[in-house]
Amino acid sequence: MTHHTLKIVALAGGVGGAKLADGLARILPPDNLTIIVNTGDDFEHWGLKICPDLDTVCYTLAGLANPETGWGRAEETWQVFENMRQNGGADWFRIGDKDVATHLERTRRLKEGQPLSQVTRDFCRAWGIQPTVLPMTDQSVATIVDTVEQGELAFQEYFVHKRCEPTVKGFRFDGIEQAEPAPGVLQAIREADAVVFCPSNPWVSVDPILNITRIRTALAGKPVAAVSPIIGGKTVKGPAAKMFSELGIEPSALAVARHYGESISGFVLDAVDAHLADKIQELGIRPLVVNTLMKTTSDRQLLAQDVLHLIERVTA
Amino acid sequence: MTHHTLKIVALAGGVGGAKLADGLARILPPDNLTIIVNTGDDFEHWGLKICPDLDTVCYTLAGLANPETGWGRAEETWQVFENMRQNGGADWFRIGDKDVATHLERTRRLKEGQPLSQVTRDFCRAWGIQPTVLPMTDQSVATIVDTVEQGELAFQEYFVHKRCEPTVKGFRFDGIEQAEPAPGVLQAIREADAVVFCPSNPWVSVDPILNITRIRTALAGKPVAAVSPIIGGKTVKGPAAKMFSELGIEPSALAVARHYGESISGFVLDAVDAHLADKIQELGIRPLVVNTLMKTTSDRQLLAQDVLHLIERVTA
Repeated sequence: MTHHTLKIVALAGGVGGAKLADGLARILPPDNLTIIVNTGDDFEHWGLKICPDLDTVCYTLAGLANPETGWGRAEETWQVFENMRQNGGADWFRIGDKDVATHLERTRRLKEGQPLSQVTRDFCRAWGIQPTVLPMTDQSVATIVDTVEQGELAFQEYFVHKRCEPTVKGFRFDGIEQAEPAPGVLQAIREADAVVFCPSNPWVSVDPILNITRIRTALAGKPVAAVSPIIGGKTVKGPAAKMFSELGIEPSALAVARHYGESISGFVLDAVDAHLADKIQELGIRPLVVNTLMKTTSDRQLLAQDVLHLIERVTA
Repeated sequence: MTHHTLKIVALAGGVGGAKLADGLARILPPDNLTIIVNTGDDFEHWGLKICPDLDTVCYTLAGLANPETGWGRAEETWQVFENMRQNGGADWFRIGDKDVATHLERTRRLKEGQPLSQVTRDFCRAWGIQPTVLPMTDQSVATIVDTVEQGELAFQEYFVHKRCEPTVKGFRFDGIEQAEPAPGVLQAIREADAVVFCPSNPWVSVDPILNITRIRTALAGKPVAAVSPIIGGKTVKGPAAKMFSELGIEPSALAVARHYGESISGFVLDAVDAHLADKIQELGIRPLVVNTLMKTTSDRQLLAQDVLHLIERVTA
């Protein structure tokens, strides 16, 4: 198929993004796929540097991800966590034993002065991941959620500790002005035939990547296809729909398409939202209505196929 | 028994020291026992601060120690270690999952600025340890082993990585001149009726403690009973006998008594070394010949009892 020769850059956050990235990895030659991952959720816990989206993407691509939780490792054990609790350590964020090894070795290398992109590359090699996975930046960027009840919260504080309960009124990406794209990011975008916004949270997964000035500039004029993370007004996982609502926007695939606006040329929405296709077309965005729910590995591959078909049409 | 009212300070290194400390803890009221632990073996691995002797002492007192290895935790699992190896991390030093939780929480607290003595106190509380356990100092002291073949080696490099194979020609305690006794150490010594040198390695477990100037000064004039870590010319565990040999001294209980010389007033040696008692007596040190091998919990308690009897005699 012709799209096997397409060079693709995918922007991804956590679970949904990781699944589509895996679908793309299953049908594209490894050299033709670069996945740029949000690092705005990264934080420190137990003195360890944790990169939730990078890990979810890498674990998923390596076949190491826990299929039930969507985060962490499959067949995980919890000795460290249980003993941290007994030692009086913080226990609001669960980290499994296999996962601890990832954070420990990453933290050690970062402290030695290795950039995150290099650590990620080495992990990908160790885990047998063939496409290129890049953090959006090697610098520190922190997504801050501004809430009605509790003011500004660090992302994981909002997401895990407060279980997304506070009402969102805005976002801020601390450090984004100084953040440079990680080595390889701009070249991958330059060489890409098209860019895919994976079905990740537009506000806190894709927007941080788009808010790095030199990434946004590099993307201008590229064909971009986005996949809606909202199906039938709801998100499969995570607070995207709740965030739209709290910001006064009815959550829907259309709202996602509007959110991305002129940055995208194609938009993949689920069959249950087929009635929104015309309105998306009216925005000057080419819609594609397919099944977007990725329950199985084969669903991931089919959706990736569909995304590439749409890209062929918008680039034709 | 009268010795239940003795106030004792014990100086301890790893396994042998921990066992006698446990024996003492079983017969003395908690307020009457302070264990001062060598920290010269402490090092950083996987970015974690590891305190092998402190952990062995605390795990042993808490009943959490692995009875087979002498280090680490009982019923340990190895997920972190196995995954560190897969991630390309260093694998020459094995750390179990439960043990990782200790090092993680300690490292986090030390980075926050908490002194080691405070972290140790909190761990003791969390693990139900009643006697006072103190690191010899809150400052960093590093035992350096000078070897014939490989020059100076950091202690764990010599001990674990090189398996004590290089020939020892001397020792150095880096940072010892600047090291102040940890809070509580001097007061415990001042208030103690007597001091016990546990059956730990004289060169690298007890000597570092004695080389802290203000500890050495505080000990002067105190009744001290030492327990030989060498039985029949050999050590139960660890390289003490090998070190004596390589330094040109025939390893024996007598050599240990000579090593401590005027700092001790009583010396406990094993029944198999009974023939050395007279020579120890000639040094002006009161010998006590008993079974010193601690195979069972009851052995620990009996040896502790014997040590206290000897102390009663030397202080009478």
